[in-house]
Amino acid sequence: MVDLEFIRKLVIPAQTKIAFLVMDGLGGLPIEEGGPTELEAARRPNLDPLACRSVCGCTQPISAGITPGSGPGHLGMFGYDPCRYVIGRGVLEALGIDFDLQPQDLAGRGNFCSMDAAGNITDRRAGRISTDKCVELSALLNAQVRLPGVELFVRPVKEHRFVLVLRAEGLAGDLSESDPQQLGVPPLAIRPLDEAHDRAASQRTADLVNSFADQARQVLAAHHPANMVLLRGLDKRPTLPSMQDVFGLRAAAIAVYPMYRGLAKLVGMCALPSGTKLSDEFDSLEQAWPEYDFFFLHFKYTDSRGEDGNFAAKVAMIEEFDGYIPRVLALKPDVVVVTGDHSTPSALKSHSWHPVPSLLYSRYCRHDDVTQFTERACVHGGLGILPATDLMPLALANAQRLAKFGA
Amino acid sequence: MVDLEFIRKLVIPAQTKIAFLVMDGLGGLPIEEGGPTELEAARRPNLDPLACRSVCGCTQPISAGITPGSGPGHLGMFGYDPCRYVIGRGVLEALGIDFDLQPQDLAGRGNFCSMDAAGNITDRRAGRISTDKCVELSALLNAQVRLPGVELFVRPVKEHRFVLVLRAEGLAGDLSESDPQQLGVPPLAIRPLDEAHDRAASQRTADLVNSFADQARQVLAAHHPANMVLLRGLDKRPTLPSMQDVFGLRAAAIAVYPMYRGLAKLVGMCALPSGTKLSDEFDSLEQAWPEYDFFFLHFKYTDSRGEDGNFAAKVAMIEEFDGYIPRVLALKPDVVVVTGDHSTPSALKSHSWHPVPSLLYSRYCRHDDVTQFTERACVHGGLGILPATDLMPLALANAQRLAKFGA
Repeated sequence: MVDLEFIRKLVIPAQTKIAFLVMDGLGGLPIEEGGPTELEAARRPNLDPLACRSVCGCTQPISAGITPGSGPGHLGMFGYDPCRYVIGRGVLEALGIDFDLQPQDLAGRGNFCSMDAAGNITDRRAGRISTDKCVELSALLNAQVRLPGVELFVRPVKEHRFVLVLRAEGLAGDLSESDPQQLGVPPLAIRPLDEAHDRAASQRTADLVNSFADQARQVLAAHHPANMVLLRGLDKRPTLPSMQDVFGLRAAAIAVYPMYRGLAKLVGMCALPSGTKLSDEFDSLEQAWPEYDFFFLHFKYTDSRGEDGNFAAKVAMIEEFDGYIPRVLALKPDVVVVTGDHSTPSALKSHSWHPVPSLLYSRYCRHDDVTQFTERACVHGGLGILPATDLMPLALANAQRLAKFGA
Repeated sequence: MVDLEFIRKLVIPAQTKIAFLVMDGLGGLPIEEGGPTELEAARRPNLDPLACRSVCGCTQPISAGITPGSGPGHLGMFGYDPCRYVIGRGVLEALGIDFDLQPQDLAGRGNFCSMDAAGNITDRRAGRISTDKCVELSALLNAQVRLPGVELFVRPVKEHRFVLVLRAEGLAGDLSESDPQQLGVPPLAIRPLDEAHDRAASQRTADLVNSFADQARQVLAAHHPANMVLLRGLDKRPTLPSMQDVFGLRAAAIAVYPMYRGLAKLVGMCALPSGTKLSDEFDSLEQAWPEYDFFFLHFKYTDSRGEDGNFAAKVAMIEEFDGYIPRVLALKPDVVVVTGDHSTPSALKSHSWHPVPSLLYSRYCRHDDVTQFTERACVHGGLGILPATDLMPLALANAQRLAKFGA
């Protein structure tokens, strides 16, 4: 891949529009040897004809054998080196609850946990307290914990999970975690990691977070089983150049889940109202079509059904998505990309390392012999097996938004 | 490729086992235009059915057009960047005679040569003296040359070739060679290379090696045609992280030739008793199966017959290897890799730059359309044309030994 600065210098203005359609966890596996994958099993009355007019390939999200989380999976598709721009777990959780994270904020993922009289952890998830209880205790911590010079936010997520955000100038990440990942021992003190960039700032931040944990213990003393907190993935959001800046695109994101809207906002996309159903997302696409150059449309449920291990349900999700392709084409986009951020085979019930079937349609795409939009067929496509970060330069080129390199 | 440190952070414990089967110099060429390669000509009653259940591709040992030696060819397969970890010729020769090279040792490849009264070289190989003579003269040098503070080893190889090892603290490589590669001139003095990392240490080491050459001249004075030595490839062994450390694998090597056992030991594999025949190697595999996680099994004779230019004999070697595949599968490995360290087409009688047909079988490999294990078919496989260094991350992923990258 070439770097963003290389691309930025080649960007030229254009009126063209790119529809970038992402089925989360699209790639799959057979559930029994020799059988079809989810995508092969799905009826694809619209995706297959589109594949015939497209150039196809399989994208490698990170590198051979590497399974991406949602953060790196999306950054790669958006053209940003996912090994360079690393997103902490706390930041991702904050994005996931639509928290409006500022550049100076430090975010961490919190668990309510159970502790015995000796201070040792007896349940790392506090018996998976109800979400209602989580809302109540998060509000309690938010109201009663005080850190000097710091604005503090404790926001519930689900069951035992919450997000902690500290807002102040001069905070730093590169911090260890307080969760010892085992029972019968006390929580760990948080400290700067050996590789901390600004050790003094990380130490000050660690002191603040440790003070939060101490106070949380006192505030929660009478709330067993949720009488303590564990903190992980404490970091600031990475500073990413915006898609407007590097690609010259007015970019919009359409996604039902907050986390994906949040990831899109990290690269400067405008998060559009997206409703709750796939039809809402395509309504939003149509309504916003005149206003932007680039539309990231994210469909969550291919991944969700893969994570469930529900092969048939993932097939159904793919078929549902297929049905919306004509509405996209009716908008006469200059470029259409259909891809996924990673594979989520129902056979594995998790993200996986397998390359992701991808297609790119444009008037100038030089289509190949691929006539089926499947994992197996896309391997033979004109894009071959390519890094996911190549998709954006290809989309820009096909949208005639990149000038020649060199004389 | 991602680097070893990246992989190391993702490694998780597992009980899975990987069989990594290497036919040295596997890839080939037709001997006449339009004809089959050695692999295409071979009957493959076991490899083809395995390819049907595998994901296939062609590995690039170093980079397009680059022909690897055995050292870089193997390091790449083992997941180590062969351009970063360079193995000197002396080190490789020492490994090839099963010399137990220590981290502080400096090893060089020696030739006995002929010199005239004026001190000019008249034969760079001393008329290819017999191996018996080589044994005698090596013992003589070993007994009579003395270097202060240095333990010295002169070990015969074959015909005019020997290995020189100096053992002491503070030795350094980055040295020039004494062989001028021409006749009628004297041997060159050895000196530090311009790019030497520790010039002073390299100078001290060069002085020692030059002293060895001076003394050898005196000791050998009456032994024409072998009355002098030429020294090349003087270096220490590279410091490589072990497979246990970076991949979390208890790794074992099964190889008849000492050099391949030596290469495996450089990356921390345990070299198992391997006998002299291919059947001995598979016996060893079966016996050691419970004790290790990763088994590198090396078959030399595909390469040897390619180097001989003997097409039919190389075909026969491939067919012999094919016959052992059922014994591997009977062990129920979680992952099987079949590959080569490079191509050795009998048409070229040498190593070559051509990509190497490779397959990876696992329950989760997402197999492709490839039904024949040949160069031509593997090009269309789901792995495409991939760097050889990708094989190890893929094997680890398929063995479910790598965690997700990022949240």
